[in-house]
Amino acid sequence: MSGELVRAAIVGSTGYGGVELIRFLLDHPKVKITSVISASSAGVPITDGFPHLTDILVQDLDGVDVQEIASKADVVFTATPSGVSAKLVPQFVEAGLKVIDLSGDFRLKDGQSYEQWYKHDAPASELLDLAAYGLSEIYGDKVKGQQLISNPGCYPTATLLGLIPAVKAGWIDPSTIIIDAKSGVSGAGRGMSLMTHYSEINENLKAYKVNKHQHIPEIEQVLADVAGEKVTVTFTTHQVPMTRGIMSTMYASLNGSHTNEELVELYKQYYEGRKFIRIRPEGQYPATKEVYGSNYCDIGFVVDSRTNRVTIISVIDNVVKGAAGQAVQNLNLMMGWDETLGLNFTPIYP
Amino acid sequence: MSGELVRAAIVGSTGYGGVELIRFLLDHPKVKITSVISASSAGVPITDGFPHLTDILVQDLDGVDVQEIASKADVVFTATPSGVSAKLVPQFVEAGLKVIDLSGDFRLKDGQSYEQWYKHDAPASELLDLAAYGLSEIYGDKVKGQQLISNPGCYPTATLLGLIPAVKAGWIDPSTIIIDAKSGVSGAGRGMSLMTHYSEINENLKAYKVNKHQHIPEIEQVLADVAGEKVTVTFTTHQVPMTRGIMSTMYASLNGSHTNEELVELYKQYYEGRKFIRIRPEGQYPATKEVYGSNYCDIGFVVDSRTNRVTIISVIDNVVKGAAGQAVQNLNLMMGWDETLGLNFTPIYP
Amino acid sequence: MSGELVRAAIVGSTGYGGVELIRFLLDHPKVKITSVISASSAGVPITDGFPHLTDILVQDLDGVDVQEIASKADVVFTATPSGVSAKLVPQFVEAGLKVIDLSGDFRLKDGQSYEQWYKHDAPASELLDLAAYGLSEIYGDKVKGQQLISNPGCYPTATLLGLIPAVKAGWIDPSTIIIDAKSGVSGAGRGMSLMTHYSEINENLKAYKVNKHQHIPEIEQVLADVAGEKVTVTFTTHQVPMTRGIMSTMYASLNGSHTNEELVELYKQYYEGRKFIRIRPEGQYPATKEVYGSNYCDIGFVVDSRTNRVTIISVIDNVVKGAAGQAVQNLNLMMGWDETLGLNFTPIYP
Amino acid sequence: MSGELVRAAIVGSTGYGGVELIRFLLDHPKVKITSVISASSAGVPITDGFPHLTDILVQDLDGVDVQEIASKADVVFTATPSGVSAKLVPQFVEAGLKVIDLSGDFRLKDGQSYEQWYKHDAPASELLDLAAYGLSEIYGDKVKGQQLISNPGCYPTATLLGLIPAVKAGWIDPSTIIIDAKSGVSGAGRGMSLMTHYSEINENLKAYKVNKHQHIPEIEQVLADVAGEKVTVTFTTHQVPMTRGIMSTMYASLNGSHTNEELVELYKQYYEGRKFIRIRPEGQYPATKEVYGSNYCDIGFVVDSRTNRVTIISVIDNVVKGAAGQAVQNLNLMMGWDETLGLNFTPIYP
Repeated sequence: MSGELVRAAIVGSTGYGGVELIRFLLDHPKVKITSVISASSAGVPITDGFPHLTDILVQDLDGVDVQEIASKADVVFTATPSGVSAKLVPQFVEAGLKVIDLSGDFRLKDGQSYEQWYKHDAPASELLDLAAYGLSEIYGDKVKGQQLISNPGCYPTATLLGLIPAVKAGWIDPSTIIIDAKSGVSGAGRGMSLMTHYSEINENLKAYKVNKHQHIPEIEQVLADVAGEKVTVTFTTHQVPMTRGIMSTMYASLNGSHTNEELVELYKQYYEGRKFIRIRPEGQYPATKEVYGSNYCDIGFVVDSRTNRVTIISVIDNVVKGAAGQAVQNLNLMMGWDETLGLNFTPIYP
Repeated sequence: MSGELVRAAIVGSTGYGGVELIRFLLDHPKVKITSVISASSAGVPITDGFPHLTDILVQDLDGVDVQEIASKADVVFTATPSGVSAKLVPQFVEAGLKVIDLSGDFRLKDGQSYEQWYKHDAPASELLDLAAYGLSEIYGDKVKGQQLISNPGCYPTATLLGLIPAVKAGWIDPSTIIIDAKSGVSGAGRGMSLMTHYSEINENLKAYKVNKHQHIPEIEQVLADVAGEKVTVTFTTHQVPMTRGIMSTMYASLNGSHTNEELVELYKQYYEGRKFIRIRPEGQYPATKEVYGSNYCDIGFVVDSRTNRVTIISVIDNVVKGAAGQAVQNLNLMMGWDETLGLNFTPIYP
Repeated sequence: MSGELVRAAIVGSTGYGGVELIRFLLDHPKVKITSVISASSAGVPITDGFPHLTDILVQDLDGVDVQEIASKADVVFTATPSGVSAKLVPQFVEAGLKVIDLSGDFRLKDGQSYEQWYKHDAPASELLDLAAYGLSEIYGDKVKGQQLISNPGCYPTATLLGLIPAVKAGWIDPSTIIIDAKSGVSGAGRGMSLMTHYSEINENLKAYKVNKHQHIPEIEQVLADVAGEKVTVTFTTHQVPMTRGIMSTMYASLNGSHTNEELVELYKQYYEGRKFIRIRPEGQYPATKEVYGSNYCDIGFVVDSRTNRVTIISVIDNVVKGAAGQAVQNLNLMMGWDETLGLNFTPIYP
Repeated sequence: MSGELVRAAIVGSTGYGGVELIRFLLDHPKVKITSVISASSAGVPITDGFPHLTDILVQDLDGVDVQEIASKADVVFTATPSGVSAKLVPQFVEAGLKVIDLSGDFRLKDGQSYEQWYKHDAPASELLDLAAYGLSEIYGDKVKGQQLISNPGCYPTATLLGLIPAVKAGWIDPSTIIIDAKSGVSGAGRGMSLMTHYSEINENLKAYKVNKHQHIPEIEQVLADVAGEKVTVTFTTHQVPMTRGIMSTMYASLNGSHTNEELVELYKQYYEGRKFIRIRPEGQYPATKEVYGSNYCDIGFVVDSRTNRVTIISVIDNVVKGAAGQAVQNLNLMMGWDETLGLNFTPIYP
């Protein structure tokens, strides 16, 4: 592929994940977008629904035709709803395409668990086995050279990147982990419901799916892998009146005694060389706007000597590191490229 | 009706106008709510969709049954969509109920104009004749004792209250009137569309229906009545990322020369004794939050000697003075009561 | 005082707590506002800074003159910053006035603890002893007839009302309590800092004062009183991009096994007859907007059988139940009146 | 300068204009930032105030030392307040530096007018003569090779780009121009006042400086230049509860008769080859979010045959095309480079 650009297709181009993939791939030096696909809006210019792309992406939306896509693209991003990916992805894999799936359909290795939490039929177990879980900084090695990548959920990305080094080091007790997560509204997608209705959400703070969110088994699966034992977490999600951003505020009891400074050091070493993780110095913890529009995950700590608990705060832009940005990062890792290609955006502030 | 409470029914209780009517009528000393009605949600407690009413209004939603309503109520508020009111209101009138209609269906005296701007069949002309247009401070005398009141639109309320005294006095040239109006998102109702989708609206300012808004003929009809000649306005509507509030910024050329102070004086005299109109002193103009949750319409002026134009700024809470509040005010006027009953709310700030 | 109105003065009338006191007292059938006081703006009409009060409260701001206030008022609300109340309140008490203090200066019974968390000199211990802590639904009996009431903090109000029945019943283990609290920006007052700067806060979610907030000792003092043992909590505060509202999401391990339904029942019994506490049925938890502008505290539960923890969600309007509303409620209790006088506002929705 | 990077210094790096300059210059292939300067915060890392730059710009803030800056930089951006630039810029010019000034101090050719509108002493007239007004798409030719560029104001940029082609073509009557402009809050900068206080601005819409804004003479100066006659406009500014974005809604009477389609064609021809201007097709007008974070100015039209007026809607991101982005564009033009270098950002949506 010396000099030639990799051809990318995006299925689900009219959702927020899809349109954000466009932003990053347009800036990618080794990729060109050859097809933007929407089951519902095929045949119309993408700028009809997204006029911010005027003069930037002059292309009509294609329909979902696997052979057509296979003839036009080397890699396909499926930014499709859960249940839809389960049906589409096997066809793309069969057609020889590389696939990066942004839905939840290939994240859980246990099909039964998937069916319990997602209420859809699980994909075939061979495909679940085939899919590499693309939490880039943790499983990057396993992503390289794979054909099918399952891109992590937004909450699991913020949460797991914030917990893993401490769990792996045995510094926190996994049975005490409580995760209080908060998300901007774009996490709910472009679909319409009272949970995305402006007048219901503005000047309002809501908890939802308490202990019932489908990201719980994904978090527990990875933590078990890291801890070497079953882990059960308490997990609350809240919707915050803002468009982008996730903050996971995480609580756990320390095993033994560790200072804030030691935690900073532990995490800096663990993530050494990984540009998109920024560990905040003692006394500073991140706010969501500080990663706005970028692929960063910023992490800070507060150790409480009164209770011997640590509070870990981890933030991402849910549409970027929590979806499209990490998907492009996974493409880079899959292809053996520098993981930052197409992703060198400074957070927009204010 | 000595001592007895007037019984009120609200059709469309699960829309924003309906639920705000509940807030005011609960506080009204001469009214009790006997039925809250929703075509789509009959049979369920109103608190299912509106938990803020928990313990406050313990009532199941009724269906739309004219005879049933007529047996329970003396007055009915129809907070129903355009096109629906046109069909329902005649039945309520026929059944002998007093009716205050919050839709646009009975505002235009000319059925053809209605059909052109609203794209629905117009109500029968007898009913259009019967309906008193309830811009309370202007046509309050004509409302008294009527059976059917057509409650004004939100934009016309802010706009007309800001223009009428100057037009009536001949101080501004009606042919030069330009209205730049801005509204919070609740004006679009509880229905779902990209115009009410949080992620599309937050951090965004949109113009919409430029020169095409169905409130244009309503504004022109009243201005013509006041000016004694046909008036044609330029009218732009914008959606602002906030829930409540309308501001009309209005421009017109002055006939002759008038100071800011003279305008303040003219308006104060015109609206003397009308509690809900507050004229701001020279050098001050109102912001939407200053009327939040209340029935006030606040008006300020800036005369520009360089162009001999005046800029008039008029603000209301669109759900209150622009809908439910004025409807209750019209009930008061219709019944011959003090116009402020049930409406003595101080604006909420901040 | 048969028939006569109680005369109230408000010190700190140009802060958000003060201006909200005005809203409630204007609606109170047994009180009249005789003086609005501001150290910084004496001599100017209150409408200069708060034009939303135009025509509603036509009064100039007074300066802080204890004798003058004593001659005009029976009760004084001190909505003054911490450190300022400590100096002013003793003078008002000395002058024979009833005092309801909205600062944190008289909440902690232990002066040393006050100095550690607040960094000001503590008031004299006689005054700390004199002050009744006005968490209305818990200590209402102790408020009655007192001269000096210390009004609770906003976070403690939401948090304690949500925890106390379960702690008192011994159903949760106090040593496991973790409180993840979130507040709207009005909690930071009208003062200016980057924490109240629009462009820094909008589209942003920040944690602040993690484990260091001065409301921690207040929460622990009350929980210890209720539990009969020392309690140490983990407490994180977040600033949410909205003006009003507090949500405390609280986590604790259950002692033994209790269902969601049992918790609902326990709380309903505990708060029986107290209008401003609304317990949500199983499967429903409150959002902040559902109490907007009102004095309600709404509480919901989720029991997680997987971890045997309960998640308790408690919401208030921080400016109302978390400040001015509860202060008026305390006035009512102090005077032996119905606790709801002046506070019968339906939440504003949307 | 073959291969060598141009060295840039930014004075006022801790304001919003300054920090946005950093975002663009970091992405610029021909520039490196050699000094970030702040009079108030010299000596501390820039990440202390702007943690979003963690690991991205590892640099301490310098003080304002003209010789030091001259030794480190080839070009200096002065993102300083009005009045400050007037004093600093002459020193930088004297020291031989290229200067791009983002304040209003060098925009008005008439020093007296400056003093009247800005209330500061005007810079020397030689410097006012020297300064090229950098409205890039209009005066790009005059910027090339200049030493001192005066970067336009945010409102004038949106307004003038929307008006000039029609004024130049004689299609609208300049004496009828009315400009209703709306801005996000970042336009007020990082300084603190009630106009930037979250609780005062959120859920609020305010007009301000009606007919008194200092951008009025700037707009009139350019329109006069284009029209060949004195032009006086009516200009209202509003603050909208959002961080970024300006919309100018402009009204004017048409000379003769022109269709929407003709206007689209006129503007497309006028701006041919200028990437950052996007003319919207008939029936579509732009929203502010469609240019968010980017250097685009999008323009749409509505011709009203009823009044023979045209409504022109022009939007920009005030911090980008209205400040830092256009400043970088002016650097590109000044140096004879492609005007898009460092500015190829797709708008962030949503």
